[in-house]
Amino acid sequence: MSTISIVHFSGSGHTTKLAESVAQGASAVAGTKTQLIALSGENIVKGRYENDAVLAQLDASDAIIFGSPTYMGGPAAQFKAFADATGNRWFTAAWRDKLAAGFTVSNSPSGDKQGTLQYLFTLAMQHGMIWVGLAEMPMQSNGINRLGSFSGAMAQAGFDSPDVAPNAEDKATGELLGRRVATLAAKLGK
Amino acid sequence: MSTISIVHFSGSGHTTKLAESVAQGASAVAGTKTQLIALSGENIVKGRYENDAVLAQLDASDAIIFGSPTYMGGPAAQFKAFADATGNRWFTAAWRDKLAAGFTVSNSPSGDKQGTLQYLFTLAMQHGMIWVGLAEMPMQSNGINRLGSFSGAMAQAGFDSPDVAPNAEDKATGELLGRRVATLAAKLGK
Amino acid sequence: MSTISIVHFSGSGHTTKLAESVAQGASAVAGTKTQLIALSGENIVKGRYENDAVLAQLDASDAIIFGSPTYMGGPAAQFKAFADATGNRWFTAAWRDKLAAGFTVSNSPSGDKQGTLQYLFTLAMQHGMIWVGLAEMPMQSNGINRLGSFSGAMAQAGFDSPDVAPNAEDKATGELLGRRVATLAAKLGK
Amino acid sequence: MSTISIVHFSGSGHTTKLAESVAQGASAVAGTKTQLIALSGENIVKGRYENDAVLAQLDASDAIIFGSPTYMGGPAAQFKAFADATGNRWFTAAWRDKLAAGFTVSNSPSGDKQGTLQYLFTLAMQHGMIWVGLAEMPMQSNGINRLGSFSGAMAQAGFDSPDVAPNAEDKATGELLGRRVATLAAKLGK
Repeated sequence: MSTISIVHFSGSGHTTKLAESVAQGASAVAGTKTQLIALSGENIVKGRYENDAVLAQLDASDAIIFGSPTYMGGPAAQFKAFADATGNRWFTAAWRDKLAAGFTVSNSPSGDKQGTLQYLFTLAMQHGMIWVGLAEMPMQSNGINRLGSFSGAMAQAGFDSPDVAPNAEDKATGELLGRRVATLAAKLGK
Repeated sequence: MSTISIVHFSGSGHTTKLAESVAQGASAVAGTKTQLIALSGENIVKGRYENDAVLAQLDASDAIIFGSPTYMGGPAAQFKAFADATGNRWFTAAWRDKLAAGFTVSNSPSGDKQGTLQYLFTLAMQHGMIWVGLAEMPMQSNGINRLGSFSGAMAQAGFDSPDVAPNAEDKATGELLGRRVATLAAKLGK
Repeated sequence: MSTISIVHFSGSGHTTKLAESVAQGASAVAGTKTQLIALSGENIVKGRYENDAVLAQLDASDAIIFGSPTYMGGPAAQFKAFADATGNRWFTAAWRDKLAAGFTVSNSPSGDKQGTLQYLFTLAMQHGMIWVGLAEMPMQSNGINRLGSFSGAMAQAGFDSPDVAPNAEDKATGELLGRRVATLAAKLGK
Repeated sequence: MSTISIVHFSGSGHTTKLAESVAQGASAVAGTKTQLIALSGENIVKGRYENDAVLAQLDASDAIIFGSPTYMGGPAAQFKAFADATGNRWFTAAWRDKLAAGFTVSNSPSGDKQGTLQYLFTLAMQHGMIWVGLAEMPMQSNGINRLGSFSGAMAQAGFDSPDVAPNAEDKATGELLGRRVATLAAKLGK
């Protein structure tokens, strides 16, 4: 049995939708327990994130998939506050060898989202985790990976509400990321 | 009188088209001399670029705009060979305080193009140059910056020939980059 | 008269010390007004930074130098909360054509500090600002740029208190960054 | 039995030394076959790398560790020419799910080496590979990871000959990277 946690922040709801798709993909793999963990601004006091229960859930996970909108060219401050709070896990190398992956949402097709994925990767590397990318060819005829991302899953929000954005193609792309991470976790006996 | 050089490599011709648009934009600014400099694989011997005339042209430029397709997630090797050959200018800080900017083309909307622009920026920073980005709002109604890029100009080639790709919107975006660099060069009395 | 603002967050005081050196360097240039603006966690409510006076000071600046420690491979969440709060300036392109630069501090010599500077650059590009790097040769005999950074100034905190870290060499490097930005601001008639 | 290939370019010999250490670390893991593959400028014609035997060796590998000096802020052009030549493996997703890792050498402690490791990561992600970082705490008392790198192994050449640089600490760091990749390959039954 592998436990996959999708820890994410969402400001307007688009990233929540993508997170749900990632979770759905992971859950489709036999023997996978999937946890959707939403980061809340309520847990951020003076810029510092505090929620021991969330960190304990992640300690008990085999894979952690990080998700955040891209705000002003990087992960949302709320996500970064969470990332900074993982520093005490860094000191003990508590997450070493766990699997990691990432996803992000922004308005425009490119929109500096690669930079956010680079950050999520960097965070995972600081923790000694193993990074799993999307591994899908870009611009497939069914719309999978239509934006052309490799290090993680990207979705575009445009100016639409979370009811319709990300679109079906971007959600299906997110599902494949979740499935990939869960499949590898199963293979590693995690 | 400012001299703006657009030094670029193009494999299949798409980047040449974008380079021409950038040049057109620069030329539209009064008092600007624009030079389109195409990097040729013929000048690369065993992986090392050698062409003193090209480097001398750049020495005499007030601004250098770097352009390359994104191949396998980064600038084309042919462009990188040129970049490595600028090492002797690095030792003498010959390009310190010149203006710099960049543009890139790939198949898909995102396509790791941000990483290529990050590299072009890093190259400019090694030389002590001053970086000028695109500075256009994304997804404008007229198609300007439709891909959502900020650190430089991006264009998408898709699977189309250079006769039709980059499209008019991406070319107009490139023009604005050229115009911006030339305008700043004029302001700096360069 | 140019106004240069150094807007920075510091957790344990090391980044404050570097910020002071950057300010000292800028102030040494005739006709420069330098403002040290410290970001406070007190202004962050549920992950969102709110301080209109700080944003107004930046609106009135000719150059903005961004500074943050590198926490978990990126800028501190407190700095990112400020960056996210600049979104309303982004919508109006209020900071377009201002000069920008950056500096960061972490424990180890490399320590993923380049990633933080890449982020500060990306933020500036989103705003349409013009980026000024360090432009100093690495490992100079007097210790200037001993760590080897180009896109901005880096300092190492090690395990020492802010009384002694950053060391004199890193502070002198920061001074040169401030001086460079102020010199260019003067030249641009800003 | 796992096959680990260390494919690298070295200009002055420092990167070869680090590659040998990485190979030594991998070889220390039972059931590992290690291949040191040096990229030669002789195989680059007009900027394009051609050597089918090398690509076939990599096809038959369970893990590929990429190594290059950092030249002008990125991987050497000779390495990039090799990377571009892997495009035909990209089209067939031939390297999907292989393990990947990376290392780099430059003169100064930081020296934009993180950017080179980011590129090696991006290349691996384009191929759908799984990235394994260094996972060692920085500045350990025995000198392991003295430079503070996480996404891969870094070594400093300074102004010394390859006889003495990288130093013993950086080589030991490289060894740990090789050992880590080989250990994970064994665990994955590769």
